[in-house]
Amino acid sequence: MEAELKAMLSDLETLKRSLPDPSHHASIDKMQLRVEHLTNLAKSAPVQRSKVKDMSAEVVDSNPYSRLMALQRMGIVQNYERIREFSVAIVGIGGVGSVAAEMLTRCGIGRLLLYDYDKVELANMNRLFFRPEQVGMTKTDAAVQTLSDINPDVVLESYTLNITTVQGFETFVSSLKNKTFRPSKEGSGVDLVLSCVDNYEARMVVNQACNELNQTWMESGVSEDAVSGHIQLLIPGETACFACAPPLVVASGIDERTLKREGVCAASLPTTMGVVAGLLVQNTLKYLLKFGHVSPYLGYNALKDYFPTMEMKPNPQCSNVACVDRQREYLLVKPARDAAAKAKIEAEALSATEFPLHDDNEWNISVVDDSELDKTDVRSLDALPDGLVRELPNADEFQKLPVPLETANSIDDLDDLRRQLEALSAG
Amino acid sequence: MEAELKAMLSDLETLKRSLPDPSHHASIDKMQLRVEHLTNLAKSAPVQRSKVKDMSAEVVDSNPYSRLMALQRMGIVQNYERIREFSVAIVGIGGVGSVAAEMLTRCGIGRLLLYDYDKVELANMNRLFFRPEQVGMTKTDAAVQTLSDINPDVVLESYTLNITTVQGFETFVSSLKNKTFRPSKEGSGVDLVLSCVDNYEARMVVNQACNELNQTWMESGVSEDAVSGHIQLLIPGETACFACAPPLVVASGIDERTLKREGVCAASLPTTMGVVAGLLVQNTLKYLLKFGHVSPYLGYNALKDYFPTMEMKPNPQCSNVACVDRQREYLLVKPARDAAAKAKIEAEALSATEFPLHDDNEWNISVVDDSELDKTDVRSLDALPDGLVRELPNADEFQKLPVPLETANSIDDLDDLRRQLEALSAG
Repeated sequence: MEAELKAMLSDLETLKRSLPDPSHHASIDKMQLRVEHLTNLAKSAPVQRSKVKDMSAEVVDSNPYSRLMALQRMGIVQNYERIREFSVAIVGIGGVGSVAAEMLTRCGIGRLLLYDYDKVELANMNRLFFRPEQVGMTKTDAAVQTLSDINPDVVLESYTLNITTVQGFETFVSSLKNKTFRPSKEGSGVDLVLSCVDNYEARMVVNQACNELNQTWMESGVSEDAVSGHIQLLIPGETACFACAPPLVVASGIDERTLKREGVCAASLPTTMGVVAGLLVQNTLKYLLKFGHVSPYLGYNALKDYFPTMEMKPNPQCSNVACVDRQREYLLVKPARDAAAKAKIEAEALSATEFPLHDDNEWNISVVDDSELDKTDVRSLDALPDGLVRELPNADEFQKLPVPLETANSIDDLDDLRRQLEALSAG
Repeated sequence: MEAELKAMLSDLETLKRSLPDPSHHASIDKMQLRVEHLTNLAKSAPVQRSKVKDMSAEVVDSNPYSRLMALQRMGIVQNYERIREFSVAIVGIGGVGSVAAEMLTRCGIGRLLLYDYDKVELANMNRLFFRPEQVGMTKTDAAVQTLSDINPDVVLESYTLNITTVQGFETFVSSLKNKTFRPSKEGSGVDLVLSCVDNYEARMVVNQACNELNQTWMESGVSEDAVSGHIQLLIPGETACFACAPPLVVASGIDERTLKREGVCAASLPTTMGVVAGLLVQNTLKYLLKFGHVSPYLGYNALKDYFPTMEMKPNPQCSNVACVDRQREYLLVKPARDAAAKAKIEAEALSATEFPLHDDNEWNISVVDDSELDKTDVRSLDALPDGLVRELPNADEFQKLPVPLETANSIDDLDDLRRQLEALSAG
């Protein structure tokens, strides 16, 4: 707009010089003043914050990262700046996904990939993030607009598509594979996929893509009555995939699409969705920055403020072929993983005795011992070369799937959970 | 801006007509096109949504309340529209308070009172809500700007003041007493006070005001290391007040202000603050709209996804005189309260047998039985006339405080909690 106004001023000046009659000059002077006034009005529009090259821990009001870098000083995170290396894909930019995207943007994540095909409506205004002035825009466009204003340091990629279509699925998978942002990264081009969709079909599609790519992901969901939700960590081959244990809340035998009929809509609350997004991104940060314990499953019952947890093993008879392939691979490398984990723990225990965790602690805050946390953290083993599977000796064959036992275990887990949930509903 | 551009077009037209030489007309035509382009650019600036007179459950994209009114259809809330009658005061518009304000605004709360004395800085950008373009504005002004854009139906009152000053405290108390919004309301002019401040001194001031006004409030907090938080319900005389049980995390014997010294700052995360704000407002909705169970205390340990709960009885030897007064009043009306509660439960049990909770349930969602929840909900008794205390017969004198027992109980509760927390930190 300012460029247009500048050109306008110059046009007026040219016209003035070409006019011989001074009686016309007054009229042009008046217009020049108008353009100057318009230029001032245009200038009062929002100013953007400039990009920040390095994350600094300096405590000044102008540093957008001081409170995050303080996590290092507090002994919570060892190297917060690493967050700039990570790419996170968010599928579904609705009530949960948009808030998750904003949280990661404010945390200074390296790169966000956003997927949605929907448009912003006034009916979305009972959840956080979108503003009434964005009604009619695609959710991806509106999200990029808001997020780039909040933090221009984050690389934003948006995909306005439906992943459940053939073309959408292809674009989805190839975007996850793209490693331009960090060519040295092993595996796919993203560190984590967050599923924030609102239907079973789309979850199964995310599950399919992640099983094929051997991509760790987190699933999230909020119930149709708006008062419960959950998050779940899914590591192909290591935990149950979404097809291993069908969800407990899908109406059996009914085509989901018939539920979303004219004149009927699900309830939603900004509170439930904000809590689920917060728990999802908190576990994302713990996973990426390696602190605390990443919950394999965490439920939220808002009526009773009850937070059930559980772990689900993969189902060896899973209907998803890629899941069964990942399970086989996982069991083959298990001995090597276990040995590497043991070696890492021993090395860390040694270094922990050499250097104290904190030099001072004038804040009187007690934190959980890092080495203790790392014992439960098997993710650090993902660094094993991809090719290792085929290079292992046949001696590991004895680690083959103990099929009946595992099946029994996962069925027990599910029955247990179902009983817990039934007791909860009845109570 | 659009008016200026329209005037500009008309000026150009006048000039064109007054110029005899057609060679000048082309130049003016070009400028007219420029102005038209500028007009289109100006039009794409934000449009506000108009006010909505009545909350409707109609499922159309243009209805900002359809997903909230659906809570009635789902059997969660009996009368959602009542939310428009309620006033909530939020003290502290920081990482928790601003998100709580946005959630309540999107839920269509009747009236919000906002208190803060601070300004927006880039250093706040790691938490949700404020935008870089608002840097330098007071938090109250910036919040009113954002919230009124999101939902113009909410009555916003903002107070740019420090409640810990003498003048600030007076204005705070008198604003809570103001009943212009709903003159028929009993007690103070607000239904709930949410404390979202970041220091002990301000919490003690909110506690003092609420004890004096017999005002139910909720306290919230996030730890300096950003990975834990809590919310707590405080009902004067009925639960522990903030002075009854000193907080567990305040550094003993240190003046808080010395902690906030040059070059040092607390860590904070948008995740932890979003979760705490979500739990706080969820419990606010449950309290105001009478559904589910309102948590007396709910903690959040982000490293382990652990959510401790507890109940704290008031301390008969509390140092806060107003608290002890409220305790005495509460015990005097207890028999009448219990009788009314019993009568209400019986009446509801009767009506529950007459009408089924839901006519249909095509969503296959099981919800918690309302009558079951109401048994634990004593708030409905707040409707007892204020004057009742003095009208009760002396026969109730036997309900006097059993001082030694109650003291022992609350000390047990605290010791228990401390042990739990120590075990947690050590684990």
